[in-house]
Amino acid sequence: MSGPGDSAGLNGSERTSAAAVLERCDELAGFSSLPDGLIERVYLSPEHTAVNALAAGWMREAGMTSWQDAAGNQCGRLEGATPGLPALLLGSHLDTVPSAGRYDGILGVLTAIAVVERIASSGRSLPFALEVVAFGDEEGTRFGTALLGSRALAGTWLDAWWELTDEAGTTLHDAFVAFGLDPAAIGGAARTSNEVIGYLEAHIEQGPVLEEHDQPLGIVSSIAGARRFQITITGKAGHSGTPWTHRRDALAGTSEAIVAIEKLARAADLIATVGHLEVFPDAVNVIAGRVEFSLDLRGRFDADRDRAWQQIESLLEEICATRGLHVAVDQTHAAPAAHCSDRLRGVIAAGIRATDASTENPEPLELLSMAGHDAMAVAQITEIGMLFVRCAGGVSHHPDESVTEADVARALDAFEAAVLELAAHHDAGQRDDGEQDTGRHEAQA
Amino acid sequence: MSGPGDSAGLNGSERTSAAAVLERCDELAGFSSLPDGLIERVYLSPEHTAVNALAAGWMREAGMTSWQDAAGNQCGRLEGATPGLPALLLGSHLDTVPSAGRYDGILGVLTAIAVVERIASSGRSLPFALEVVAFGDEEGTRFGTALLGSRALAGTWLDAWWELTDEAGTTLHDAFVAFGLDPAAIGGAARTSNEVIGYLEAHIEQGPVLEEHDQPLGIVSSIAGARRFQITITGKAGHSGTPWTHRRDALAGTSEAIVAIEKLARAADLIATVGHLEVFPDAVNVIAGRVEFSLDLRGRFDADRDRAWQQIESLLEEICATRGLHVAVDQTHAAPAAHCSDRLRGVIAAGIRATDASTENPEPLELLSMAGHDAMAVAQITEIGMLFVRCAGGVSHHPDESVTEADVARALDAFEAAVLELAAHHDAGQRDDGEQDTGRHEAQA
Repeated sequence: MSGPGDSAGLNGSERTSAAAVLERCDELAGFSSLPDGLIERVYLSPEHTAVNALAAGWMREAGMTSWQDAAGNQCGRLEGATPGLPALLLGSHLDTVPSAGRYDGILGVLTAIAVVERIASSGRSLPFALEVVAFGDEEGTRFGTALLGSRALAGTWLDAWWELTDEAGTTLHDAFVAFGLDPAAIGGAARTSNEVIGYLEAHIEQGPVLEEHDQPLGIVSSIAGARRFQITITGKAGHSGTPWTHRRDALAGTSEAIVAIEKLARAADLIATVGHLEVFPDAVNVIAGRVEFSLDLRGRFDADRDRAWQQIESLLEEICATRGLHVAVDQTHAAPAAHCSDRLRGVIAAGIRATDASTENPEPLELLSMAGHDAMAVAQITEIGMLFVRCAGGVSHHPDESVTEADVARALDAFEAAVLELAAHHDAGQRDDGEQDTGRHEAQA
Repeated sequence: MSGPGDSAGLNGSERTSAAAVLERCDELAGFSSLPDGLIERVYLSPEHTAVNALAAGWMREAGMTSWQDAAGNQCGRLEGATPGLPALLLGSHLDTVPSAGRYDGILGVLTAIAVVERIASSGRSLPFALEVVAFGDEEGTRFGTALLGSRALAGTWLDAWWELTDEAGTTLHDAFVAFGLDPAAIGGAARTSNEVIGYLEAHIEQGPVLEEHDQPLGIVSSIAGARRFQITITGKAGHSGTPWTHRRDALAGTSEAIVAIEKLARAADLIATVGHLEVFPDAVNVIAGRVEFSLDLRGRFDADRDRAWQQIESLLEEICATRGLHVAVDQTHAAPAAHCSDRLRGVIAAGIRATDASTENPEPLELLSMAGHDAMAVAQITEIGMLFVRCAGGVSHHPDESVTEADVARALDAFEAAVLELAAHHDAGQRDDGEQDTGRHEAQA
């Protein structure tokens, strides 16, 4: 077995070069339900089937066996020194938001496949198996609830989700059947703690910190927990000529609420986003009788976020009382902050250092991730670590999402070196159980 | 010829009773593009074809000839004392907003048909012809531009409208062809001043004033002019975890604008409504990159309204500059205030008095209409008068829209009496040219 210092020499294969990974990102971008080059690829769609098939082919080329699990995640496995060893999971997701970029999630899956291919073709034998998981749903675009793929893997799937519906009214249950999956078999996607030794994920930063520090790569310290709500404000539709005294305008009330939420969240050092909003009946000359909108609330500390949500609920009630409106709130998603373990932060740091010959950057940057990731769900069963890759302008969830080939090359080397670093010390029994337990405890809070 | 005092005795026909008119309202409500009993009936739709055919039948039953004009308005004509006399137009519209009530527009058309039927069956011969016009588009629901039917009749159709599109991307031009109309023949729908002697319209009030004064009927003094705008605020889509420093959230900016517009309009004694709003890409975990919304602005005085719009434009610019957003504005509709002529206000007043035996209400109420009406467009070619009918709670553009049978009975009698009052004095040359000219001048301002 070799240490991470060797990894730079392994970059010979054309299939595992940064250029090849970027080509595969471009190829995946072609599978979209939107016209004109825009990307949208949602859970259990025909595009999902197509990219799983593509990923399966790449996994097999890399030397892995590949299968689609009971939740539609595409998995691949390379055995370790002996068959049947617990696995280090490497993964990210292949689904997207509407009008997405081509790297969020996708780059992490392709990095994982490329790194397994490098290791397989090097003939090294590791003290654990390697598994790549290409999750089918992280964004929650189709059913409004995120992390469906990784929560199936973590065994935290909720039966209530079967009744979730997409915009066309299709239930998650029926979408499973239409995709060729058996809802009753969902438990088969779940992994247990003794089957896995950890989870590593590479991902674009989706923020400006690395760019501002002129660093291609960073270590994630923890992932901020998000709570998401579907909020409905109901007033009364009426003619647009109705006098002020007789108006119960749901959109005017909603607008006041959005402005107040923004102010409150800024003051509390939280991030709040209203990204989805629908007006009914939505006509130029009719007062809005009802508005449905989403609120995504995230922050460094779960307690701050939860306190702010209580304040937001109060202000929604106040605004609606003043305007003769009614408010109803439904929580659609809640993920506690997830902490990356000391051990896996350490191997990511070692991986980054292995790719950086300069002495000016002795310590890689540690970053809080404001964006949610599959790793949050996987943290329920094993310790997690994440590598961040710089993206242009911090832009993601947008067609302008962009990475450089040079940064991807560094990411591939660092991710590979991190895996080898973990392998080098795995036998030494340095598993970071204390930190792992802490992480799990908070993840379940 | 008889005076209005006789009209109460003409209420014998079952087809012209208030109950019959309300039954016809219910029948028309069945023609809808929405399920579950909700009403939506838009210009040049299959439902438009269906209700025109129904109205044509009722017009013929009433003794009129009936035809569909070059804009899809369904017309009926009862000749006066000699064939070919100029006509008094009676009308309103059969199209609706989404999730509409069953009386806005419809009650006016059915009142007009019932009153012509009463007069035709009485054997009276009037010194003018009577024409009923059931306008095909007043609300502007489908193409975003209102009064298309009545502007075709007034000869103020704009060629630029042919390129307007509905939500499915169909142009107004193509919708004409699909409906069986010839766009090149649109000029044939136009009437000229010398063909008509005036226009009377009955309509539900769409406001609370009559109810608050315990009056079933009222006279419209003038119709407030509305301006409508399509406003697009563009920011940048991005991940919902993006920090505040890097956000250009189009929905946050729009919300601030809506709150500010409401405040400004209230202070200026104007009515402002944002009834339509769409968010792009509209996903829970994506910052809004673009918001498109409508603004409907109306007031008693055109000058106040126009001054307020200038202020609104400035505040949109300010808000967007502060937030790194861009704003674009497109005016989709502009109607100046339209004044009802002294003469036609007089005959409406006489009509109302003829139905009210009490001495406690010597003078019928005069009301400003904050809602727009077909009469505004018709005011370009002739003098206009309007009768308002009380509606429950001032509610309109909503399924709860409601009138009482007793009020409709009073409206039918009053509208009939008004027509007969005009007929009684028509030969005396009391045409109110001075007021009419004033009305036209302002209408073109």
